[in-house]
Amino acid sequence: MTDLVPIDRVFHALADPNRRAILERLGTAPLSATLLAEPLGVTVAAVVQHLQILEAGGLIRTEKVGRVRTCRLHPAGLSAAEQWFRDRRSEWEQRFDRLGELLAADEDA
Amino acid sequence: MTDLVPIDRVFHALADPNRRAILERLGTAPLSATLLAEPLGVTVAAVVQHLQILEAGGLIRTEKVGRVRTCRLHPAGLSAAEQWFRDRRSEWEQRFDRLGELLAADEDA
Repeated sequence: MTDLVPIDRVFHALADPNRRAILERLGTAPLSATLLAEPLGVTVAAVVQHLQILEAGGLIRTEKVGRVRTCRLHPAGLSAAEQWFRDRRSEWEQRFDRLGELLAADEDA
Repeated sequence: MTDLVPIDRVFHALADPNRRAILERLGTAPLSATLLAEPLGVTVAAVVQHLQILEAGGLIRTEKVGRVRTCRLHPAGLSAAEQWFRDRRSEWEQRFDRLGELLAADEDA
């Protein structure tokens, strides 16, 4: 899963407050770039740039029908990032468990 | 928790493969910048820059003892990012559930 979406691009996409705000709004419904731009107080051109970065990170999909480009959430990027966290946490917890066992064994000796 | 660590900085710190490699190595033991630089094939100065970005993201802590700066994992950044994912997922799942209920009610009508 992680290989399908470059994880650098997922985290880069998430590192901007306007891009996170776009994701949160797309959680309610698919929307056009124009509608996404309004509450952010930025130009449609700026939103289009953000959308390209979100799409490269596998976080949204866009589809152009006639003259309107509609954006919707896409789960791949979110899943890749969550998987990275799960892997790290389970690796680190295993190590801390082993460290705990070693310390306990040392106390018993 | 999220307010304590600026989430922009957490995701920015995670968006670089060398910085993620540093985090993964620090999962095994606290290490100096010099030891961290070796397997990455980058200069110590480059690692020090990465460490500053990781520290700003609440992902590591560094401590200088004599002439050696030792780095260790710090849980705040990781927790802030995981919390962001949990919040989004629970929000989105609730919406999808409500959507499912609305569709089911519509079918019953």
